[in-house]
Amino acid sequence: MPISRFYKLYLSPNRKYVKVLKNLLGFVPGNLSLYRLAFRHKSVAQNVKKGVKNSNERLEFLGDAVLGSVVAEVLFKLYPYKDEGFLTELRSKIVSRVNLNQLGRKLGFENLIEYDSRILNSGRQGSLLGDAFEALVGAVYLDKGYEFTKSFLINHIIKSHIDIHTLEQTETNFKSKLIEWCQRHGKDICFELVGNQEGESNKLFTIQTTVDGEVLGLGKEFSKKNAEKLSAEKACEALGI
Amino acid sequence: MPISRFYKLYLSPNRKYVKVLKNLLGFVPGNLSLYRLAFRHKSVAQNVKKGVKNSNERLEFLGDAVLGSVVAEVLFKLYPYKDEGFLTELRSKIVSRVNLNQLGRKLGFENLIEYDSRILNSGRQGSLLGDAFEALVGAVYLDKGYEFTKSFLINHIIKSHIDIHTLEQTETNFKSKLIEWCQRHGKDICFELVGNQEGESNKLFTIQTTVDGEVLGLGKEFSKKNAEKLSAEKACEALGI
Repeated sequence: MPISRFYKLYLSPNRKYVKVLKNLLGFVPGNLSLYRLAFRHKSVAQNVKKGVKNSNERLEFLGDAVLGSVVAEVLFKLYPYKDEGFLTELRSKIVSRVNLNQLGRKLGFENLIEYDSRILNSGRQGSLLGDAFEALVGAVYLDKGYEFTKSFLINHIIKSHIDIHTLEQTETNFKSKLIEWCQRHGKDICFELVGNQEGESNKLFTIQTTVDGEVLGLGKEFSKKNAEKLSAEKACEALGI
Repeated sequence: MPISRFYKLYLSPNRKYVKVLKNLLGFVPGNLSLYRLAFRHKSVAQNVKKGVKNSNERLEFLGDAVLGSVVAEVLFKLYPYKDEGFLTELRSKIVSRVNLNQLGRKLGFENLIEYDSRILNSGRQGSLLGDAFEALVGAVYLDKGYEFTKSFLINHIIKSHIDIHTLEQTETNFKSKLIEWCQRHGKDICFELVGNQEGESNKLFTIQTTVDGEVLGLGKEFSKKNAEKLSAEKACEALGI
């Protein structure tokens, strides 16, 4: 074991945090402050300079991009005979907030993220875990580079925690998800045909989803069913469900 | 000069194509077939196996992701005091179809892309050049890896062809763009307030953009002006302008 690693794990004042991260990540992190930042939600961040807060949001921006790129390559190679529409859809499922939140929960992020517990009640906690996961990917990338991050994601995350083939089969039914949510929260929901355009060979339908009188989604497709699906999906996204 | 490079440039039967690519890219490509594929539009692709065509669309999916990741890092480091909203917006401008099409034009892609010239008249030529640029990034990535692609993009593309600071200043005015387009094409346009929700501290406005009676965009923001802007932007996207 190199001296610096030994020092970090057994002697440094941060050795406890280093061990926690090593257990989580499977490797000894280099720049600890990056990882601390990845787990700092904006609700507890302070203004640092020129209005930028030391929260995980910038790292989330970077990590989202790196994660998207790694997942794109994994799928590109895993499915050599599938077209880009299939690849795009499957990638969205993998990096969806729902999936990344679950992943963050499995990895025990609740104990690692610093956040103001009042946000739990405001309904804004929705993507806390998934956002932190993306920020963590950004931190690993800055700390260790692309190839390292790629093998970390493939070997430590995707292989152990993400069942790509099951996600491939799952068709997220946004319409029933939305209806259920509205029933649970006592809200009115309405799907309405608001547009109807003659295309060259097909008719294009526009469906609008309204929740409690507020338009939340708009879907345009060549079948009413698909337009409704898309519209419901957008409304789910708007509501963060 | 290594023998393989010398062979490729001066002796191989593909030496002409290799030289063209070397002039374009600034390096001698490894796997030529990847680059050929990157420049093959779906209009001239043939079915290869299990319904997958040998067009550049899969490479475009991969390249889009790699490009997004490289640009994210460039901006993350170039603007240490800007928040993720700023970074996201600036990245969208850089990787927008408009910008990548321009880039493809500057790089002379018109002479490299194989496509069925009839698509020029069908109005679907819109993103031919930008799509090929993304596919090219995918090809470079598969041929040479991430670090190589990153320095190729930074040193050969971004530094020479993309003026980030000008893009930063440019605010794309989607509303006037849309109005102009509608005037030119004799179409009716209408921006309409369709939702109006009391938030905790702010009021949320929903503006709907309708072109010739068809709803094309929906924007929800805390000010009417921004809601209109977002709604117009979505309509522009839907119309491919």
